[in-house]
Amino acid sequence: MAEIKEVKLFGMWASPFALRVEWALKLKGIEYEYVNEDIPFNKSEELLRLNPVTKKIPVLVHNGKPLTESLVIIEYIDDTWTEGYSIMPEDPYDRAQARFWAKFADDKCISAMSGVSTSLGEAQQKMLQEAREVFQTLEQALGSKQFFGGDQIGYLDLAIGLFAFWMPILEEIVNVSVVDNENAPLLKEWFARILDVDMIKTSLPPRDKMYELSKQRREQFLSGEISRLN
Amino acid sequence: MAEIKEVKLFGMWASPFALRVEWALKLKGIEYEYVNEDIPFNKSEELLRLNPVTKKIPVLVHNGKPLTESLVIIEYIDDTWTEGYSIMPEDPYDRAQARFWAKFADDKCISAMSGVSTSLGEAQQKMLQEAREVFQTLEQALGSKQFFGGDQIGYLDLAIGLFAFWMPILEEIVNVSVVDNENAPLLKEWFARILDVDMIKTSLPPRDKMYELSKQRREQFLSGEISRLN
Repeated sequence: MAEIKEVKLFGMWASPFALRVEWALKLKGIEYEYVNEDIPFNKSEELLRLNPVTKKIPVLVHNGKPLTESLVIIEYIDDTWTEGYSIMPEDPYDRAQARFWAKFADDKCISAMSGVSTSLGEAQQKMLQEAREVFQTLEQALGSKQFFGGDQIGYLDLAIGLFAFWMPILEEIVNVSVVDNENAPLLKEWFARILDVDMIKTSLPPRDKMYELSKQRREQFLSGEISRLN
Repeated sequence: MAEIKEVKLFGMWASPFALRVEWALKLKGIEYEYVNEDIPFNKSEELLRLNPVTKKIPVLVHNGKPLTESLVIIEYIDDTWTEGYSIMPEDPYDRAQARFWAKFADDKCISAMSGVSTSLGEAQQKMLQEAREVFQTLEQALGSKQFFGGDQIGYLDLAIGLFAFWMPILEEIVNVSVVDNENAPLLKEWFARILDVDMIKTSLPPRDKMYELSKQRREQFLSGEISRLN
């Protein structure tokens, strides 16, 4: 009989939101079972049962109880496995700032990045300008620190780590430059720095597969075949 | 010389987001100075200096340090003034659920509610259907409890308390019914229950002023005079 693990993560190999949660589990040294969902067309019955409200991945199941929304799940992991690596900043003000910027990244940066990737011509130029601005703003949260979490990676690094991997791929596909040495030099340096962290480096999906999928999704968007990613 | 209070809240009398923060401060018994901003046309220099990123209210200033985003501020208040009333649920799973539903309310319910108020004809019928659905979904988080926080009000009650006051006003202005005994009877009962909590009841803006402003804003939206509320 197969072993039933107490922690199960429903994700999709290319999902940066599922990856956030995997990173949090790995930082804590928590063993988990990974269920790769076929997103967006063939979601499993189990996923729909576990997350009937948004029907999205990631879903973390801990002792049979489902949790949804990647940022909420990261906080839950830090709240529940209190020993070992601390993900959230200890100081309440720093914690509030980290939450603010994670929300900013989800509300502004992700849509700006997707906007650049799923538009053409003049609309794309407008999105590009907006994307450069929001990432320049995001850079303020880093300042002169090594990581958003300070000397080591923390909540905000996990929350926005997806950009370090995904942005250069999208920039290459669309042939534009959003985060570069001119527009956001500190963020660009952080991209290199976080991708060099062992736990991050060893958990990324294969770049060529990610490139192909992102290219395909962009074409599906532009042709109207799909309207959303998850 | 005027006394300088250590806690200052930049809000706007009719803002449900500023009201959330006021409720949290009141639950904790924290004294604060209130600065009423002229939103959206005449924001003060100080507000723009304190919140250059989103330029929105509410902004809480504690010992000179600014905090933004109402839900983030509520958690900060609970994290900082740890004695007395507990706003966040104690159990990590309950906490995660409360955060999930607050995000759901902000992402889905508020836009659905605004959508009903700022559309006409067929578009409005579509928004109305969507609004009824999302509020029916939100009701699931309440279940058979007195309050979302259990026997007493907590984080999620503060987060969505705005609907209890504002929804009936908008329903009256637009002449529709979103949260009613047929569509979401438990939520409707909770509307009455939370509006009867002393701290809530005594801190609401005057209903007639709120009605007039909401009506005026709706007309400004429909005529294209304004495109956003804050």
